[in-house]
Amino acid sequence: MYGTERKETQMEMTEQYPGYNHRVQYYETDQMGCVHHSNYIRWFEEARIDWMRHCGISYREMEKQGIIVPVLGVEATYRQMVHFDDLVDIKVTAAKYNGIVLEFCYEIYHQKDGKLCTTGKSRHCFLNKEAKPVSLKKENAVLHQKILTFIGKDVQDPDKKQDS
Amino acid sequence: MYGTERKETQMEMTEQYPGYNHRVQYYETDQMGCVHHSNYIRWFEEARIDWMRHCGISYREMEKQGIIVPVLGVEATYRQMVHFDDLVDIKVTAAKYNGIVLEFCYEIYHQKDGKLCTTGKSRHCFLNKEAKPVSLKKENAVLHQKILTFIGKDVQDPDKKQDS
Amino acid sequence: MYGTERKETQMEMTEQYPGYNHRVQYYETDQMGCVHHSNYIRWFEEARIDWMRHCGISYREMEKQGIIVPVLGVEATYRQMVHFDDLVDIKVTAAKYNGIVLEFCYEIYHQKDGKLCTTGKSRHCFLNKEAKPVSLKKENAVLHQKILTFIGKDVQDPDKKQDS
Amino acid sequence: MYGTERKETQMEMTEQYPGYNHRVQYYETDQMGCVHHSNYIRWFEEARIDWMRHCGISYREMEKQGIIVPVLGVEATYRQMVHFDDLVDIKVTAAKYNGIVLEFCYEIYHQKDGKLCTTGKSRHCFLNKEAKPVSLKKENAVLHQKILTFIGKDVQDPDKKQDS
Repeated sequence: MYGTERKETQMEMTEQYPGYNHRVQYYETDQMGCVHHSNYIRWFEEARIDWMRHCGISYREMEKQGIIVPVLGVEATYRQMVHFDDLVDIKVTAAKYNGIVLEFCYEIYHQKDGKLCTTGKSRHCFLNKEAKPVSLKKENAVLHQKILTFIGKDVQDPDKKQDS
Repeated sequence: MYGTERKETQMEMTEQYPGYNHRVQYYETDQMGCVHHSNYIRWFEEARIDWMRHCGISYREMEKQGIIVPVLGVEATYRQMVHFDDLVDIKVTAAKYNGIVLEFCYEIYHQKDGKLCTTGKSRHCFLNKEAKPVSLKKENAVLHQKILTFIGKDVQDPDKKQDS
Repeated sequence: MYGTERKETQMEMTEQYPGYNHRVQYYETDQMGCVHHSNYIRWFEEARIDWMRHCGISYREMEKQGIIVPVLGVEATYRQMVHFDDLVDIKVTAAKYNGIVLEFCYEIYHQKDGKLCTTGKSRHCFLNKEAKPVSLKKENAVLHQKILTFIGKDVQDPDKKQDS
Repeated sequence: MYGTERKETQMEMTEQYPGYNHRVQYYETDQMGCVHHSNYIRWFEEARIDWMRHCGISYREMEKQGIIVPVLGVEATYRQMVHFDDLVDIKVTAAKYNGIVLEFCYEIYHQKDGKLCTTGKSRHCFLNKEAKPVSLKKENAVLHQKILTFIGKDVQDPDKKQDS
């Protein structure tokens, strides 16, 4: 993508999370001629952190404040191969949150035809500097509130697929 | 590890599959100070291919014969962090196989204390050169038979954990 | 970045190559707390392929036509650490080309302050389907001409750094 | 490789550094059908840290003591393709050291025929906890002395290639 498109100024919150998109890199392929399956797990992370940014949560700042968000579990189901140079749209939904555990769902679509390629989930907790699990609700009420605002909402613009 | 330990001659089949082991590389860590969660998915692959080798199935040869084995789905549950330079033992079990779909289960243990760090699963099918799903039973009876021999067996030496 | 920014329609050629930019992903860091040095080599590739796209050369199409462009050599010099979530601008210059070997130079800048973090080079040849080196000049005059057009030109908009 | 081969007990120092070896993983390939060039940079790191271990220097311990060893520069020249499942021997030489900067040279050989595939170099400095460059000679005389012992020596067993 081109230089003017990814400036910091564009990272301000907007009403609708338009979804994350990713262009497949050559180094993400394997000799099967498509994306190596481990990379989707990385794209989930890219999309999750972008979603957080959209919700006004800087993962970088959160870590500086001493909160880390490790992955407790992850799963992916591969439905269609994705190839080098393809553009994919990644839809992120914060599916569940109880102040202690946060779950995300992911759907990866081919941008060219809107076909679903991959689905997945990830489950996270919150640790403090001593690597002890914390209740975000108690530890950081502001973050807690921000996540609550977006839980369960399909923040993806529903009209997006047709437009693109 | 040292040069004398990984020679081709050692790759011959033995009675008991002793499990795969992996030393954590620096490039596998992230700024959380432990292994990035996507790498376990790669270790599953390392272990799965090593297990196949042990069963007399060369993944390389299989691909040359026109059969590829894509991943249909994968999941991982992270129980304990794994750190740079740690040695882990990876236990692989071919859990289910019906001639069309093959499932593996994985358990990753810290070598130093035998503690379970990560568990996971992967599900695979078999495709021919035209990327069409095939019944391995029909397409390649020899491979089919080899897999059948090892299905559901805990080929890991049960006494291993205590010894190491 | 946001969904509307990376559509295929934006991939059309423009007068000035504005440079490639990349947001540092969490999985690109290591336990030193900054980007693992091997990833810059991957960013060079991202930028090089984006530069080609800008020049009207689809790397994907080129491979389909039976021409692959392996790396003969690569080098990188690291001047400043780059951290998670940083935005970097990558300037690509096709420095030398003789119809057989193509050389690129790279400069990676922090977007926030314009400081140079990393410089590098890569050297490439062209192989046909039989993995034999070919003269692009003879094998594919159209591609050859496209590359010639951009050789040695600083196609990066010189006013860009100040604006961003 | 098999479980009994990589135990901690084997990590004790021996007279001759036998070289590091690596089996090419599937996830290290790309759609060109061979190893992605960025992975050799990672193998250099694997080999360098293994070499240090052989010299009695635990990189893990060094970091715990507050010394990190970032890469200042790296280069690689690719001579022969390396493929999935190949075994490679990596020869490491600590070429130069002045107490402040340490340089390594690498040679990667196909184990099957002893052919040289890749050569490379890396240059490193030493930083303290405050990310300030330090003279290892002053900061940690023991480490300094250990490195000096091995500098410029071809610690690879010269008879190895023929034997394997």
